Formats: sequence, C-alpha cells, structure tokens
Amino acid sequence: MKTIIRVNVRTGAARIEEASKDLQRIAGRHFIAHILNNEVEPTCEPLGRHNKLIISQGLFADTNISTTGKISLGGKSPLTNGVKESNTGGYFGKRLTRLGIKAVILEDIPDSCARTRVLYLDSNGAQIIDTPDLQYKYVSETCKLLQEKFGKNIGILCIGPAGERLMLSAGIACPDNAGVQMRYAARGGLGAVMGSKGIKAIVVNADKLVPPEFIDPDEVNNIRKEIAELIIADPKSNNRKLYGTLDIVAMANQVGLMPTKNFSSGSFEGANNFTGPAFSELVAKRSGSGRSGTPCVPGCTIQCSNVLPAANGDQVVASLQYESAVLLGPNLCIEDVDTIGELNNLCNEVGVDTIECGAAIGVAMDSGVAEFGDGQAAKDMIIQIGEGTYLGRILGNGVKFTGLAFGNRRVPAVKGQAMPAYDPRGLKGNGVLYATSTMGADHTAGNAFETIKYNDPLGKQNQVANSRHLQIRGALLDTMGVCIFLRPSFVKDPNLLVRLFKAKFGWELTFKEIRELGAHILDLERAFNENAGVSEHYQRIPEFMREEPLPPNNAVFDLTQEELEAIWDVPIRTDSF
Amino acid sequence: MKTIIRVNVRTGAARIEEASKDLQRIAGRHFIAHILNNEVEPTCEPLGRHNKLIISQGLFADTNISTTGKISLGGKSPLTNGVKESNTGGYFGKRLTRLGIKAVILEDIPDSCARTRVLYLDSNGAQIIDTPDLQYKYVSETCKLLQEKFGKNIGILCIGPAGERLMLSAGIACPDNAGVQMRYAARGGLGAVMGSKGIKAIVVNADKLVPPEFIDPDEVNNIRKEIAELIIADPKSNNRKLYGTLDIVAMANQVGLMPTKNFSSGSFEGANNFTGPAFSELVAKRSGSGRSGTPCVPGCTIQCSNVLPAANGDQVVASLQYESAVLLGPNLCIEDVDTIGELNNLCNEVGVDTIECGAAIGVAMDSGVAEFGDGQAAKDMIIQIGEGTYLGRILGNGVKFTGLAFGNRRVPAVKGQAMPAYDPRGLKGNGVLYATSTMGADHTAGNAFETIKYNDPLGKQNQVANSRHLQIRGALLDTMGVCIFLRPSFVKDPNLLVRLFKAKFGWELTFKEIRELGAHILDLERAFNENAGVSEHYQRIPEFMREEPLPPNNAVFDLTQEELEAIWDVPIRTDSF
Repeated sequence: MKTIIRVNVRTGAARIEEASKDLQRIAGRHFIAHILNNEVEPTCEPLGRHNKLIISQGLFADTNISTTGKISLGGKSPLTNGVKESNTGGYFGKRLTRLGIKAVILEDIPDSCARTRVLYLDSNGAQIIDTPDLQYKYVSETCKLLQEKFGKNIGILCIGPAGERLMLSAGIACPDNAGVQMRYAARGGLGAVMGSKGIKAIVVNADKLVPPEFIDPDEVNNIRKEIAELIIADPKSNNRKLYGTLDIVAMANQVGLMPTKNFSSGSFEGANNFTGPAFSELVAKRSGSGRSGTPCVPGCTIQCSNVLPAANGDQVVASLQYESAVLLGPNLCIEDVDTIGELNNLCNEVGVDTIECGAAIGVAMDSGVAEFGDGQAAKDMIIQIGEGTYLGRILGNGVKFTGLAFGNRRVPAVKGQAMPAYDPRGLKGNGVLYATSTMGADHTAGNAFETIKYNDPLGKQNQVANSRHLQIRGALLDTMGVCIFLRPSFVKDPNLLVRLFKAKFGWELTFKEIRELGAHILDLERAFNENAGVSEHYQRIPEFMREEPLPPNNAVFDLTQEELEAIWDVPIRTDSF
Repeated sequence: MKTIIRVNVRTGAARIEEASKDLQRIAGRHFIAHILNNEVEPTCEPLGRHNKLIISQGLFADTNISTTGKISLGGKSPLTNGVKESNTGGYFGKRLTRLGIKAVILEDIPDSCARTRVLYLDSNGAQIIDTPDLQYKYVSETCKLLQEKFGKNIGILCIGPAGERLMLSAGIACPDNAGVQMRYAARGGLGAVMGSKGIKAIVVNADKLVPPEFIDPDEVNNIRKEIAELIIADPKSNNRKLYGTLDIVAMANQVGLMPTKNFSSGSFEGANNFTGPAFSELVAKRSGSGRSGTPCVPGCTIQCSNVLPAANGDQVVASLQYESAVLLGPNLCIEDVDTIGELNNLCNEVGVDTIECGAAIGVAMDSGVAEFGDGQAAKDMIIQIGEGTYLGRILGNGVKFTGLAFGNRRVPAVKGQAMPAYDPRGLKGNGVLYATSTMGADHTAGNAFETIKYNDPLGKQNQVANSRHLQIRGALLDTMGVCIFLRPSFVKDPNLLVRLFKAKFGWELTFKEIRELGAHILDLERAFNENAGVSEHYQRIPEFMREEPLPPNNAVFDLTQEELEAIWDVPIRTDSF
C-alpha cells in the first residue's frame, strides 16, 4: 500500500505517486490531517476548488486483523468548517488494498456544476466516466446500476441525491457487495464535498493483487489470532453480535442520557421497544434467528452490524445503530421500531447522516413543522430532502441550518454538527468531548459512555481528563484503520500495539510513543481548525443546555469553558490505551 | 442626554441610570462597541439571552446640526456573529433626545418566544405592553396601529414579520411621523435580535423636554450655521436633493462596478432607467415637481431621501437608494423602476434589509428558483419571506444561507453579510473594505466610491491605505451621530470638529486625537470580533470573485490576504478627515 492517486476532477488528469518513506508512516485519520495542513488553505470554501476529498487507508489495512477493512474519508468539512475524518466499513477499503492503493485524493471542482460522474479505479489507474443516468438516484439503486455496469465484485463509495445537491448533512455510502449492509462515512458533510467534485461514485475494480508487505508476517498473524481470541473472550462481544449497538439502549435510557423530543428529556419509555433483547426477540420472531449481526467489513469477528427484517421477511434496514435509532426514534417521540428502521433506510437512500437528519427533524418538529411522534411526516421530510424541495433543502443542510430557518435556538449541535445520542447534560464526559473535539459533536472521537461504569456521568470530576485519554485513543484507532470495538484487546494488552507496529513495519515504537502519536494527530487537527477560525474556543455547548434542566436527572451542563479548555493541559496518559 | 434605560425583556423590569462622566464621552457606534466589550460574552448566541440590543444616540444628537437625528442600533449580529452597528434616520432619535435619553439597552429574552409586545418610553420610564394584535403585521400597518394607540407624535422603532420570525436579514424600521419616509437600521440582522427579545416596537412619547447641555451654546450654533453653509455650497448637495443617492447610478454603471445578474457583470443597460436625471424626470412627470428629496431626519438640510410616486400619484416607495435599487434591480436583471420601487417597498414592509434580500434573490435566481428579470417572481419571494413559507425562510435568512440552501457558491458576501452595490472587482477599495471592516461587507463603514476620482478603482495601489483612512472616518461619523453626507464639511474644514467637541462638551481634543478616537473605536470592534471568533483573518472575499473576471473590465479581485491584513499597519492619517 504505497500508491497514492491524485485525480483532478476538472481536467480528469490522474497522477500516480509512490508514498515516500515518511508518508508511509502516515495513514488514515493522520493522513487526512497531514494533507489538510500541508495542501489545503484552512480558510478555503469547503465546496470550492481548494478543498480536497481525501480517502486514506489505515496503517493496518492490508493485514487480516479484524475490522481493518475500515477506511477513512476526509477533507475540510462544510458543516463544521474544520477538519473532518469519517470512516466507514463496507467493501471498498479491502478492494483498494488489493490494488496496493494507500490513498486517493480528489482535487479541484468541475467547471460546470451538477456533473454526475464515476471515478473508476483499477490496476491501470483512474478515469472519470460520465454517468448522467445515475443523477439523483437513491443509493441502493445507484449501487445496483454500478454493479450492472462494472460487475458484482467492485468496491463502491457513492452519494445519494443529498450529496449531489451539496447538502451539508450528506454522507458517503459504502455498501457491502451482497446488497445487504449499507455503511456510511456519514458525518461532517463529506457527501457534499464529493458532490462538489461532480463525482457520484468511486468504483474500485481490484483486477490485480498487489501483495501486502510485512516485516514479520508470522508475528502479524500471531497478533491477528490473539486479537481474535481476546475479542471472543470479551463478554461484550456476544451482546454486540446479538444486538449490535442497540446493546446500550437500556442503559442509556436508564441513566437518562437518551435524547428525547429534541433533547428535552433524557429518557423515553418507547425505547423499550428496541433494547438489545427486545430487538433480538423481534428479529427471532421474524427471521427464525435471534442473531442479527453480520460483518460490516469482510472478515470481522465482531459482526455487530444488525439487520432488521420486516414482518414479511423483506429487509427494513441494515444496520440499525444506537445513535441512528435514538435520533430518529426517541428524539422524534417515535417508538415503532419498523418506522425507525424505515426512517434510517430513507436516510441511507437519500444519502444523509442519520444523526444530523434526526436532529434536524427534531428541531423542525420542535418548531411546529409536524407533530412529535408523526412517523409519516418524518418519512415525508426525508423524501423531500432527496427531492430538494424547499423544506428538504432546509432539513438537508443539517440541524443548525434548520434551527436558523425556523428561528429555534434549541439546536443540539457543536461546531455546526448535530450531537449524537448522548445528551451532554446526562453524560458530561460527552459534553467535554463535543466541546473540545476537533470534529465537533461526534461520539466516535472519544465516547465517554464506557466511563459510566466507574465515573458519575452527572458529575464534573474526571470528565475532562477521561475525555483527553479517550480522544487520544480515538485518534489512534482511526489512524490504524480499525473499529472502536477492537479497543478491549488493546486495553487488555497494550503491548499488542507495540508488537503490531514492529511486526508490520519494523518500527520500534514504545507504547508511550504510540500514545504520543495519538496526541500529535490531535495537535495537527487542532492546528488546522485554529487556522480555519473554528478553534474549540469559539464553538460552545448550546446555551439551552446550560439553562434547561434535563429530566429525569434535571441536570444542566455546567462545566465552564475554562474547565473544558483545560483539557489541553492534561498530561498524556501512557499507562493505558 | 445622560439617561440610560436598561430593560429586562423577560421580567419587564426597567432600570434608569445616569451615565458616568466617562460614559458620557462614549456614544453611538462607540457606545455599542463599549457595551459589547464590557457586557456581552463575545461567543454568546446572538438570539439568546446573553446578547443585548443597544440603542444609542450619537455624541451630538441634542444639537441642531444637520443630520444629527440619526441614531445607532447595535448588538452582536446574528448574521456576521460579530459586532454590529447600524444607524438610521427617522423621527425616533430626536424624540428620545427630548427626553434626555442617551441609550436604551434591551437585555435577556422572554421565557416564551413569539411574544408581540411594545416597549413604551416616556418621562415616567419604560414599560412593556402586550400587543398581540400587532403580530406579523407589515411595518406601515404597525406604525399606523401604533399611532392610533399612542398618538401621532410618537417616535417609533419597529420590526416586520421577518424580525418576529428571527430571520437573519431582518432590520429595524424607523419611520417619519407623516407616514412618508421609511428609514431602516437594516443591516446585520438587528431586527432578529429585537424579535428575539419579544419586542415588536419601541415607542417613545416625548412628553417632557429635558434641555440639552452645551458648554458654549453660541459656538455650537455658529458651527451649525457654518456646516449648513458648507453643505449648501457643496456642488454635490444639489444633486443629492434632486436625485438622492441615485446620483451615482450613471457613474457606477459606467465604471463597471454595478452588481448585475448575481454579481456576474458590472454594468447593466437597464440602469439608465433610474440614473439621477432619469429618476428626476420621471418624478417630475408624475408629481409636477422634479425635486424628489425630503429630509429623513427632522431639520436635515441635505434632504437626499427621495420619493417615488406611482403613475396615479400614490407613493411607491420612499426612499429609493442606490444600493437598494441596484441589488433589487440590475442584480436581478430588473430594469423597470416601478418594479424596483415595489420590491424595495415590500422589503420595508416585511422588514428585511434590501441589500441582503436583493442578494439572496439574486442567488436564488442564479440557482434556477426563478428567471432573472422576473419581477413578479421577486415580489412573490419577498411576500413569502413575510409569510414564513419554506422558501421565504431560506431567503429571509440572507444570501449566505440561500447559497447553502441551493448549493450555490456564487455568494456575494463577507462575514456572512451581503455585499452592497459595489462589486469588489470593479472597485477594489470596497473589496478591501468588505474584507477588513469589523462590520463585514458594508459600504457605510468606509465607502471607497469617492476615491474613483483620484485612484484607479481597478488597481491595487493605495486601496488599503485609503480604506484605513475611510474606515476611521466612518467610525467617527457613526459615533458623532451624523450622516456620511456631512463629511464634505469636515473634509473642507477639519477644525470644525475640534471646535465642535469643545463647544458641546468642553473637551480639548486636537484633530489628531479625534482621528485616533476613530481608530480606537475600530480597535474595540476588532477586539470583540477577535474574541467572538470572527476576526477578518477568517472572513474572506468569496473565491468566485478571485476566479471569475467581471465584465466589462474583466477584472478579478486580486489583493492578497496579506495585502489586505496589512491595513492594520497603515499609520493613522491625522492631516485630513
């Protein structure tokens, strides 16, 4: 994986480079921060010619270690105006790996907008193909047409009509090849960046195998096995396979951090309909099997990606994740699982982030556009996003935009990005995260949910230090190109990381140096944001969350800005992952 | 003028203070910057409880010097997220003066939103009165109902439905008392700030005369006369009285800086319909008098505020200013003067900034929402803003918002605020102004149009230094509370200013110190913006203006960011006003 392909989407010219030794050490989220800092003017217009869409493999993408099929996408976010890395499962990453491609960088924008084109990658390089028949097609239809045109075995990244219309909540879809799983690099509006480049889809045809290079293949294989065993031994893994991320619904509801009715309450009785066990029971009844999990990337041993079948056996959505279910369910006072699943599927089809979309509909309902609980109205709104009606254009540009449109200041967002399904008043650690993360409100950057076991979620204590620790971990996982659910292995045996870096690359890194690498990546991202004018100093937790107590705990978010910004003085922990 | 009234719009409590000696030296635009820096958290939400709506008299408001009826309104702008001062003619200022009121500050927001209330001021103080019958009423109807309720002789500030709906392009109207002139503190969304306070109108009943205090009344009177004579002697004054600001249409068109078809050209043949002489001729034909000018504040000797009568004698709009006419005319490829006047009047009625609204409609037309040149469609759009339809909510939130909604990056704005009728490619000095002004794209902060006579508008040379000079002058005029059209008097005889400060207040300021005061005010504003995260470093001239040559001169905006930011190193000129 040394090949970097740069494509100028205006001229169609592709340039193939081999990564220098130095650049080979930089991958995934780290690579995105690196390219942004070195090649992208921080104040540029995110949908203009100076932004780049960066696709980068993680450090260990060409190993067989579980979850390494994930791939990082990034650029300057049109939603946050800062750095954005969003990674996704699906089949694209591993296909790219086979061709030995480390990264693809899309540069410039076409002279005439609203181009519908495919970027086609194979062992001969890259070419851009006009595909007007794909314009404004839903994502599943797009994938079907692409497979008809380019064969079943391709890897696909594509956008829905929302991305083509440059809507700020547009994500980039990455399906599996069986037409079951629809994974997403959903957050930060990267689908609009891709749309601005006039690229509807990126197709990779792995017509040649470039063998991976390992310094010590046997040791890599040993580590792979050890990780797989640690995962299997982890008591949470079985739940993840059975329930997916809906595993945490019951706890989140009980603790009172589950966003309900546009973040006006922290618990919702109807959520009992889709707790892990309830969901599993429903799936069992409909499919004859209570095990809903499938792998989102080839070869994953966790297989948390669940599938919701309809009563008639048709697939409603795959997967239904905790954050999506809550933003499209309790946050809208919708309790019917099938409706939630359909809403999620519609988001996948029009190509928007479920979190951003659920939050936007929540604010619209809070503004009187429809009644809370009206599932049909919610479906209609998502369809309108795809159609680009005026209401659709409001909602499709995200929750902050929707709040401004309706003059509603109850907007659950930081840095312009919607909060995921953890109200910061009910889990203050995630408030710290949203306020200080380089990514804006984003749970994947260092979710504090796991700290509930040992730290009072309503108290201030340790939240800032914990978040610092978790954010460094998040930066590392996203750079390695592995799923956050691999963390228990590294928490249990941090030395696995040391051995892995050595066996794969021959790098002699201590565990301390690996942790410092994580902090360094955050520093790079902070520098870009600072230069872009969106430093965390200016991006605050919404005022209503400091004023309105959140039932059932009636807590407000009360960490001061000074307490939050002290996060950068917290020493880097080097004793644990 | 020592009284400061603070009103908490949540509790209704009013507090009356007497300005300290120090605070008496601070007025108008300076007062707004002072209060923002001392009392308003720069990162606060502009429509939340921590922002304040600040109404402040200029330093010389209680003199009879021409144009001193202007009054400054300000706060943190929801459009630019930075400091905002917008001043207006009309009858409110002089009524407030009679009561000896220096400033009114509205604090907090009501617990329940969408309140329609009047803040009533008289010699007894302030009270808030519920007026649900005024909800969503057009501005002229609002004024009529207020005069029915509170008498003919009141001073009024009010908002239209756009302000009540918290739209970011909403301004604050200030009518005369005859129902002719509708003046506006239009820019920066201050109407939304007023709406967020649940105040539809502020009514002042000057039921008592607090006599003004002058150190040397005779000298003040001498200066007043000298200024009036200088104005009358100024060759431009007659044109201003005849044509209003339409005086500059012909020159702007000829030079090629007149925004046409969403800033895609710099000249428009149809503008010949409303050059100063053409306008005057039309008025003569319809009214029997070619003199269209009336005073926008009581006692103004310039009287540039024109009135457009319809063919049947009814009033179409008063006044029709250059910037409004161009943004609602050429920028939309509309050449019919009556249509332009009706569009302007509709903006006044729904309560939005004509510049922001014309720019927003331009981007909407550029996005295919309607055809360029379709006046009926444009009227319908403004009506929809008032109604709060989905399209209306998009347009009513301004040009940047509209560009995002339609995925159109040809957005003529800086710091989120629409450019007035001087394309920065055709007049580079105004590009410098837009890029570096504390106010965002705003010609009143230091219009370089006057420099065309002696400096190549397409060249880079002197533009930065000139803008520095003009911006300091602008800050001073807005602090003194006088119209920009008073500047020729002070340019001709700078010592008038020295004498005026001394005669009115007894302050022994040199002319150099007066110029330094202007620079100090800009520094205060810059500090607020810096702390709010909207420093000029992050607010750039739109990329399309650096890429797309502007016919007929085919110039692009080519001052580098470094050249622009060097403005702060330009020494303060103390040799001229």
